[in-house]
Amino acid sequence: MIANTPKTPYYAVIFTSIMSKNEKGYNSMSDKMVALASQQEGFLGIESARNDIGITVSYWKSLDAITKWKMNIEHTEARNLGREQWYDTFKVRICKVERDY
Amino acid sequence: MIANTPKTPYYAVIFTSIMSKNEKGYNSMSDKMVALASQQEGFLGIESARNDIGITVSYWKSLDAITKWKMNIEHTEARNLGREQWYDTFKVRICKVERDY
Repeated sequence: MIANTPKTPYYAVIFTSIMSKNEKGYNSMSDKMVALASQQEGFLGIESARNDIGITVSYWKSLDAITKWKMNIEHTEARNLGREQWYDTFKVRICKVERDY
Repeated sequence: MIANTPKTPYYAVIFTSIMSKNEKGYNSMSDKMVALASQQEGFLGIESARNDIGITVSYWKSLDAITKWKMNIEHTEARNLGREQWYDTFKVRICKVERDY
């Protein structure tokens, strides 16, 4: 469950969100996106937890891999649905993981 | 609930953990550490969620602020208790937040 990431440096996308009341279709889309992300080049792992807020951290080999995943068509459509339907608010942070232990 | 962080760059500590069965004393210590962290110089905010795994991301102005918080005596004692009692496993990742939106 804790992502088995390689030696630093690598990259992390921290996605923090607060859901709207409309969760219809969210779980299946979320599962689909995790499966799709896992197939992308440079994907290293993902960690996710939710109670009052949701935090999903995905790990990537490079900024380039993150950009390609962002531009993936299915992912773009899912993000648009998320913005319109599922999330009241969210924040995305792109990070370089410099050290881990 | 989503941390109101300043313009990038700043730093993030991603703490991912799996709890042991012994949660006694954990919640009060966790609350105490959040309160204490919030008083540290360079602290920018914290986000936390838990179900199967726990993810806590704290945000900091600099690596120096992170180091000082790591060396804080009460925090060090809490971490030792965590390692001994509360966590089956955990991972800490120190990150530079390069971009957010």
